[in-house]
Amino acid sequence: MSVNIKNVIRMMGILLFVIGLCMIPSFLVAVIYQESRCTVSFSITLAICLCSGLIIMRTFPPSLIRIKARDGFLIVSMCWLVASLISAIPMCTSGAIPDYVNAFFETCSGYSTTGSSILTDVESLPKSMLFWRSFTHWLGGMGIIVFAAAILPSIGVEGMMIASAETPGPTLDKLTPKFADTAKNLYLIYIVFTIAETILLMIGGMSLYDALVQTFGTVGTGGFSNYGNSIAHFTSPYLQWVIIVFMTMCGTNFNLYFVLIRRGPKAMFRDPELRLYLGIMAVCTLFITIDLLAVGGYTNGFKSFTDSAFQVSSIMTTTGYATANYDIWPTFAKMLIFLVMLTGACSSSTGGGPKIIRILICLKLIRRGVALKIHPNRVYTVTLNGRAVSSEVATNITNYIFFYIFVVFAGSLVISFNGFDLLTTFSSVITCLGNVGPGFNLVGPTMNFSIYSHFSKIVLSFLMIAGRLELFTFFMLLSPHYWNSNKA
Amino acid sequence: MSVNIKNVIRMMGILLFVIGLCMIPSFLVAVIYQESRCTVSFSITLAICLCSGLIIMRTFPPSLIRIKARDGFLIVSMCWLVASLISAIPMCTSGAIPDYVNAFFETCSGYSTTGSSILTDVESLPKSMLFWRSFTHWLGGMGIIVFAAAILPSIGVEGMMIASAETPGPTLDKLTPKFADTAKNLYLIYIVFTIAETILLMIGGMSLYDALVQTFGTVGTGGFSNYGNSIAHFTSPYLQWVIIVFMTMCGTNFNLYFVLIRRGPKAMFRDPELRLYLGIMAVCTLFITIDLLAVGGYTNGFKSFTDSAFQVSSIMTTTGYATANYDIWPTFAKMLIFLVMLTGACSSSTGGGPKIIRILICLKLIRRGVALKIHPNRVYTVTLNGRAVSSEVATNITNYIFFYIFVVFAGSLVISFNGFDLLTTFSSVITCLGNVGPGFNLVGPTMNFSIYSHFSKIVLSFLMIAGRLELFTFFMLLSPHYWNSNKA
Repeated sequence: MSVNIKNVIRMMGILLFVIGLCMIPSFLVAVIYQESRCTVSFSITLAICLCSGLIIMRTFPPSLIRIKARDGFLIVSMCWLVASLISAIPMCTSGAIPDYVNAFFETCSGYSTTGSSILTDVESLPKSMLFWRSFTHWLGGMGIIVFAAAILPSIGVEGMMIASAETPGPTLDKLTPKFADTAKNLYLIYIVFTIAETILLMIGGMSLYDALVQTFGTVGTGGFSNYGNSIAHFTSPYLQWVIIVFMTMCGTNFNLYFVLIRRGPKAMFRDPELRLYLGIMAVCTLFITIDLLAVGGYTNGFKSFTDSAFQVSSIMTTTGYATANYDIWPTFAKMLIFLVMLTGACSSSTGGGPKIIRILICLKLIRRGVALKIHPNRVYTVTLNGRAVSSEVATNITNYIFFYIFVVFAGSLVISFNGFDLLTTFSSVITCLGNVGPGFNLVGPTMNFSIYSHFSKIVLSFLMIAGRLELFTFFMLLSPHYWNSNKA
Repeated sequence: MSVNIKNVIRMMGILLFVIGLCMIPSFLVAVIYQESRCTVSFSITLAICLCSGLIIMRTFPPSLIRIKARDGFLIVSMCWLVASLISAIPMCTSGAIPDYVNAFFETCSGYSTTGSSILTDVESLPKSMLFWRSFTHWLGGMGIIVFAAAILPSIGVEGMMIASAETPGPTLDKLTPKFADTAKNLYLIYIVFTIAETILLMIGGMSLYDALVQTFGTVGTGGFSNYGNSIAHFTSPYLQWVIIVFMTMCGTNFNLYFVLIRRGPKAMFRDPELRLYLGIMAVCTLFITIDLLAVGGYTNGFKSFTDSAFQVSSIMTTTGYATANYDIWPTFAKMLIFLVMLTGACSSSTGGGPKIIRILICLKLIRRGVALKIHPNRVYTVTLNGRAVSSEVATNITNYIFFYIFVVFAGSLVISFNGFDLLTTFSSVITCLGNVGPGFNLVGPTMNFSIYSHFSKIVLSFLMIAGRLELFTFFMLLSPHYWNSNKA
């Protein structure tokens, strides 16, 4: 057995152990709310996880060989997949979601911080299961922050790290104390956000349980709620605005919070990605507010503004919470929602989608393209923050966008066998791949993914993980090249 | 007045004169069918065109200064715009399409070989007007062939000419006898196709008039018919297959016919664009045939095959004729139709869309992108026909695709004010920009564009011209850069 495979197995052992530990809070919730079947399910699953994890870790001791970047792809993809597969077990065995494929879809959606659900009646589920379901968002958000800091730089997305010049991205090749520091700091921010939001929501009148569930969904930009009508359940504008602010904050590059702490807000807001992100959000919110008042049947300006701000930030940060059904809004408003569904949030945030930095560079490439047609012999450089964007970074981003589009079409083609309308089909793939949550028509904010066949649910689950791991990390494993060169 | 402006005005004079001449056949049709109001409209318009054209040509004699490539953009865009503006006059004054904006939409659709229509009852129009409407397709197809041969190379789309190594593309800078030769040969092929199809359709039982109208729509890959139900009016499979073959032939790079004549079919079919074009067409036809038989309610295999082949080639070549309403087909079939609507036909054909060559290079860029992630230090070259694709060509294509996507979204946002569903909105823009014709839902094959506001019709008309002229030619004129640098 090669060292690589041993490494991978050892990592899976660690993962099993960690997941076992992570089930403890949900187990306690089951105990507190006296959900006996859930208590049994959690206790058995977590016992198996802890034991098998320990056995694997003992059998495969840490090797001194460093994990190669390329093995990182496999490990990361396996982590998300295995975590989803295992976490679905208590859902299934407790009878909350008896169908394993459905439970797997739900946990994939959780760990990938998507928030798409197959549940038709959320509120009928045991409280501990809803807690566990939302907790996977929180874990997924935590996972993606390390992923963005540790793995992405090693697969050539250094361009995404421009904003974080303060904290040069460590690579998996160098799991140095420096990396541990960065990760610790990122986690600290994440935990501070979690605590702050929970408290602010409780101040607004939520129970601890409700506050925790909505917070997990927010800081992980996930979108699972324990209520069928999502955040619309909480009519208080205060609560809605707390969630809007935290969604927006968690869709921001986490490295910028270091910049904020060390160099102040001016330095933070010099970041071009953040400016475009907030700019798009503000413009879309404004336009939708006006559109809702003009032709959308809204009469209250503040209500229109709140609903519009909520839906724009929810979809753009790829959270997916809802306080209003945007699917019945006027076409112009829907179109704007669709556009922000496609852009996604900032790089190095917990948000998904193609990310604003890539959209920004694409727009700059378009501008350069037009300029080059007018003056074919001049040299135009695409700059970001005053520095030239290297052609490698531009190529990387171009490849990514093309691949993203390709996956959207290929995925839609596979999903189309279900026979739903084109908008449902396309938006299902876009919303899963972008880790958003709801789509349009049959998968709109008030609908769910239970309509799909088992096969389609599995495809959509894989798309969620692929989207979460920046596509290449996941799809690369499907390439024969990867496995051939691994042997060599 | 600068030499440039004089040149532009002189070209418009020539254009006016040519349009005047081109109205003669339609005028004769009006005389033959004794459509008095049309006879008067045509005679007055053509007299004004001929006279004003002559006067302008006399006032602005040919200058010895060569036309610069950059002025070419202005001239070409003006040609398509002015031709549409003038050709709408007889439609309007004869009372056939009393609303001038509607008539302008129709002629834009004609010259851009789109085939989208605002007519709710085609058959109520005078025969001479329907002839004129279809004749604009034929003229537009002719125009685009010269455009592809003469203008495109000068704006840096030399990559598109790879297949035509036999006939190196002349640029507008060098309107040498060589260019005249190429153009003459291309026209010869175009005219041979026209005559051949007319004869073959007449053999199948069409009247000369019907045969000419359908031929104009086919060889220009336009799609206007004189029947409300398009080619479904002709139930003969022979007629439908003649049109399928000619649509496919006219969506092929015309330069390949030189290759065919000089080096035989083997050399022709070595062209990677042609292979991908025919490959996509064959695969989509096959899948749709099966889908229609399996879940589409078709019982006759040949009928399913014919309908499927017709719709695939019609949409992929961006013709837009219909023998069946694909909008009521199963989702998988609709999805495939949507995909070929996005790809378009071959470069240097009369077809529109982003063109297969660009799709091919995008796919190769995606493959290289994945390979580069696996082996970041290796060098991968994208090749076409065994030759390396230069990074300039790749950048050009990338810019084009990004710009295309940008225009689709920007256009859809503008059109969304009409309040139709998202699929109608998006497919309207995609079908107009890609010069296809029909879209989905409210603009499906059995519907029309009369639902849109005047403002939206004008926007869509401009998109048709922009799409026809490979976007940059047209949109560049909207850039302040263009005009500033023109002054210098």
